[in-house]
Amino acid sequence: MMSDHAARELYLDDIAVGDEFVSAEHQLDAAQIIAFASQFDPQPFHLDDEAAQASFFQGLAASGWHTTAITMRLLVQSLPFASGLIGAGANVTWPQPTRPGDILHVRSRIINITPSRSKPDRAIVEARSLTYAQDGQIRQDLTARLLAFKRANS
Amino acid sequence: MMSDHAARELYLDDIAVGDEFVSAEHQLDAAQIIAFASQFDPQPFHLDDEAAQASFFQGLAASGWHTTAITMRLLVQSLPFASGLIGAGANVTWPQPTRPGDILHVRSRIINITPSRSKPDRAIVEARSLTYAQDGQIRQDLTARLLAFKRANS
Repeated sequence: MMSDHAARELYLDDIAVGDEFVSAEHQLDAAQIIAFASQFDPQPFHLDDEAAQASFFQGLAASGWHTTAITMRLLVQSLPFASGLIGAGANVTWPQPTRPGDILHVRSRIINITPSRSKPDRAIVEARSLTYAQDGQIRQDLTARLLAFKRANS
Repeated sequence: MMSDHAARELYLDDIAVGDEFVSAEHQLDAAQIIAFASQFDPQPFHLDDEAAQASFFQGLAASGWHTTAITMRLLVQSLPFASGLIGAGANVTWPQPTRPGDILHVRSRIINITPSRSKPDRAIVEARSLTYAQDGQIRQDLTARLLAFKRANS
């Protein structure tokens, strides 16, 4: 099942390995990068383009956790689990820095479903969510373990 | 080496497996939880205590990524790598939800150092950072892979 900008509510019954979900887009700019970094990741290469030129990043780059937070915002809308997105954990890598001007979208794929041994109404659903920019390159590779529930009467 | 609220700049030369770092504290409240969630994780259990009572969380809970962002803020100050904290990737789990009123601090331990094969001036340093609340319980278990550099003339 391929779902674009899905709005319906998904129960565990509706989710299968291989299902794909595509998010809307988010346009990033320097002001957003600096605002997030000022609050949560105040390092020169996330705060000031001139300072960033002399750094490993060679120019202003978003905090990796800012990319994760934007990805989460896009997932809330594109991966509509009926009980919400409840994360048990995640693995994340940032193959490239996210930059001012990037237009991000997220493509998610269900890669594993592990039913709970003790609670038959639920499972851990593993979703791999790739955050792409407008150049087709991957800025973030996130695999999250999410709790999903069956319909009450299923 | 045990470092409390460290301020000095650490080069790869200064970092060893087993080194520990303790952060300052951050006090969380409902307003911060709702502000972060409104922007990045707008789900009822992160936005509204009444709605959250009826959810899996049974009360207002912070977005896991908010806990990660606060942890990052505390790491910038407590894990003072000379070139900054440049993350290649991370694994994170949330054993318990973070709640309004939680007073968080982070204890980090260097668990692995892998020298670059191609670039002798750098290594990937793995740091495990546990985010504790005032009750002594772990709210987040983060292992990050960070880029660290040798002193220019070492």
